Amino acid sequence: MTDVKILDIQSNIDSHIDWPSLMDKEVELTGMVQNIRLPKWGAFIILRLSNYNIQTVVENGKINIDPATIPVESTIRIKGTVRQSQIKDLAIFPRNAEIQVNHIDILSVPSLPALPLDTTKKDIEAGLDTKFTLRPLTLRHPKQRAIFKISATIFNEFGNFLTQNGFTRICSPKIVFSGAEGGANIFKLEYFDRNAYLAQSPQFYKQMMVGAFGRVFETGPVFRAEKHDTSRHLNEYVSMDIEMALQNGYEELIQVETNALKYIFDKVASDCANEVALLGIEMPVIDKIYTFRFNDIKQIIFDKYGKDYRGEKDLCPEEEALISQYVKETYNSDLVFITHYPTIKRPFYAMPDPANPDETLSFDCLFRGLEITTGGERLYKYDDYVTNMKKRGMNVDLFQSYLQTFQYGMPPHGGLGIGLERVTAQLCGLSNVKEASLFPRDINRLEP
Amino acid sequence: MTDVKILDIQSNIDSHIDWPSLMDKEVELTGMVQNIRLPKWGAFIILRLSNYNIQTVVENGKINIDPATIPVESTIRIKGTVRQSQIKDLAIFPRNAEIQVNHIDILSVPSLPALPLDTTKKDIEAGLDTKFTLRPLTLRHPKQRAIFKISATIFNEFGNFLTQNGFTRICSPKIVFSGAEGGANIFKLEYFDRNAYLAQSPQFYKQMMVGAFGRVFETGPVFRAEKHDTSRHLNEYVSMDIEMALQNGYEELIQVETNALKYIFDKVASDCANEVALLGIEMPVIDKIYTFRFNDIKQIIFDKYGKDYRGEKDLCPEEEALISQYVKETYNSDLVFITHYPTIKRPFYAMPDPANPDETLSFDCLFRGLEITTGGERLYKYDDYVTNMKKRGMNVDLFQSYLQTFQYGMPPHGGLGIGLERVTAQLCGLSNVKEASLFPRDINRLEP
Repeated sequence: MTDVKILDIQSNIDSHIDWPSLMDKEVELTGMVQNIRLPKWGAFIILRLSNYNIQTVVENGKINIDPATIPVESTIRIKGTVRQSQIKDLAIFPRNAEIQVNHIDILSVPSLPALPLDTTKKDIEAGLDTKFTLRPLTLRHPKQRAIFKISATIFNEFGNFLTQNGFTRICSPKIVFSGAEGGANIFKLEYFDRNAYLAQSPQFYKQMMVGAFGRVFETGPVFRAEKHDTSRHLNEYVSMDIEMALQNGYEELIQVETNALKYIFDKVASDCANEVALLGIEMPVIDKIYTFRFNDIKQIIFDKYGKDYRGEKDLCPEEEALISQYVKETYNSDLVFITHYPTIKRPFYAMPDPANPDETLSFDCLFRGLEITTGGERLYKYDDYVTNMKKRGMNVDLFQSYLQTFQYGMPPHGGLGIGLERVTAQLCGLSNVKEASLFPRDINRLEP
Repeated sequence: MTDVKILDIQSNIDSHIDWPSLMDKEVELTGMVQNIRLPKWGAFIILRLSNYNIQTVVENGKINIDPATIPVESTIRIKGTVRQSQIKDLAIFPRNAEIQVNHIDILSVPSLPALPLDTTKKDIEAGLDTKFTLRPLTLRHPKQRAIFKISATIFNEFGNFLTQNGFTRICSPKIVFSGAEGGANIFKLEYFDRNAYLAQSPQFYKQMMVGAFGRVFETGPVFRAEKHDTSRHLNEYVSMDIEMALQNGYEELIQVETNALKYIFDKVASDCANEVALLGIEMPVIDKIYTFRFNDIKQIIFDKYGKDYRGEKDLCPEEEALISQYVKETYNSDLVFITHYPTIKRPFYAMPDPANPDETLSFDCLFRGLEITTGGERLYKYDDYVTNMKKRGMNVDLFQSYLQTFQYGMPPHGGLGIGLERVTAQLCGLSNVKEASLFPRDINRLEP
């Protein structure tokens, strides 16, 4: 039979190049031109590969092409010899090796004579709006790339930590029925002949799945139709969610989150060492867990800073910053958990504190001045749900496909959600959470 | 300061219990009652934990409670002694150990006197519609759970394989602007004061990111407003996407996909051995890659089975089944790649074959009779996009935020998408892809 073609099963993937072992050897590399510097004797061509930029060196007259004629952002294939080097530029890695170029083929060039933004400088000199509009270009800058290498590592290692600890990954639907969570900040959808909504969180689904799997997690998009355009909000973001049967109450959730963050930050430090250095990130040290009750911390902030938020039923941004400042100064901690939020400010599924039903067994986690997590214990008895929802004026019938779960028996349980972009932004020291989203969505922005 | 509470950083997570090492030791376990069997001398209580069911044994009169009074699906805490055992039921694991119960505390019971569906039988005896409506209950059945343990492993290991091979995970937006892909099968959304759409694939975004990262992947939901309700379709599913710069053309994509599937299936075989046995799955053997050109395979199917699809510009479901049957019979392969699809049936970004522009450098992958992947090389020059889109009557202006990418220079590249539910369904031998979705969405179903 001549019609079948049988391919070798090997691929050409080879990302983990051991450069010292290649010293003085011939190599062929294909990449994009990050930058070209032109000293008198020739050229440095910084070549962008999948995981880093490498320095290549051209001596005048030694190759088939004048490097000064190659546009930045061209795709080129070079042949050359690996040589020792000492490179100080943190945006170039490896720093102990470079390629002495023998030959260059140009595979593709930009169609524009001049790019609309200079990605060869140490930093991108443009406002946020321009940066976002030109995302396919701005993300080619080493510092922009570094943010998303770190973000990808956080996403991946969140899943690895939980899988290793007996959690099952779930993928819950993003198109949901009218009853799901609800509230004002929900996007409406035409679903064939009826209305549907975009999930604001996987809350209902992860609870349903605790009955089946005991411990579940999800990493996926969530959608909030919030109209305000702030440095803390995105209308679409990635939520890293946990829900689990509890043996020892909500404090177990705080411990799981802390362990997860510790594991993730350790992985970022080791696997993204180059990106951490390039962005000048000081990695958080996590060796103890600090928790304060909601009312207590308000008193502390009043005593310490003279700011009186004691009557407020929530934390405002300034307050979150002061709490983090206080915990950093007093305990040298970058993380803090605030517990026992007022029941009036928590959703119907939150478990009230038996000792004081005006407070819930719930918490927020603040990381370097910003809330990155809301979590807590949930109601788990069907009758408690019905009572609580009726008390809040909710139509129980709309929620029956969710509430059935509690009729079938459910363990005491709870969960939490961590915003990927917020963790990334706080870790990387970004002043706007949108900078930690590849393609941010806000009330004004839907493209690219 | 008395207001701070400092928690131990250790969590109570302990999923990898080494049962033989616990022989004759006292343990405490909390779980849900999967099933109770009542021989004359006492009871077997099968306890559902996060990752498996364990057998516990009660002798009459030896504990604080009559086990016959404990409802199935209660949450209980047992104290007992680990003993050797020989268990044949594939739904119970470990099979060499059981717990001799000394004490039981009931933590929670179902609120219904009788559950609407029996999850204690070897199989669930209900139609698909009932199964889906009662998802929070049906997923508690061991065979249902097994499907989603395998699905979670496929999702996780897809990401691990690609990360290990130099790919960067991306999270692209699911709310997209009007130009994105388009076509009839798209869900429309109210996005503040304008219209937006739900992404049918991350196609545009993953291409944009090849310019920055060289090799990218994504695992996330995609949305197709297809009106037909078939065993092959979901209106929302999880797409596992790859996009990468190519050195050697589209065949490199076929090699990457094959390597990824081989890696994933090996992980399923080792990490889900219990689930594979329970579902009676025969794991596919992948040791060669078989590819046929689109026109050639149609001729083969005609010659071999007398079915004439040679005039058709696509593959129909019956044809996919016959092709897989042919490849299985002839080469003992569960996977086959069909290449060189007609240009007329591929999107505007598909790369035509320079040797014959009526065909594209693209492919589908069939797994045990069902298409699980579409992939191929893409155009990478800006002018080619503009020419091709105009030829197809498309409004180039609508796509500028995407097309800018090609103005900045792009490497030759290509990619593919794998449907998570389809791979899972084919691997687990499910006759309907919806059974591989926790909460399937179709034209008739939006709940739970």
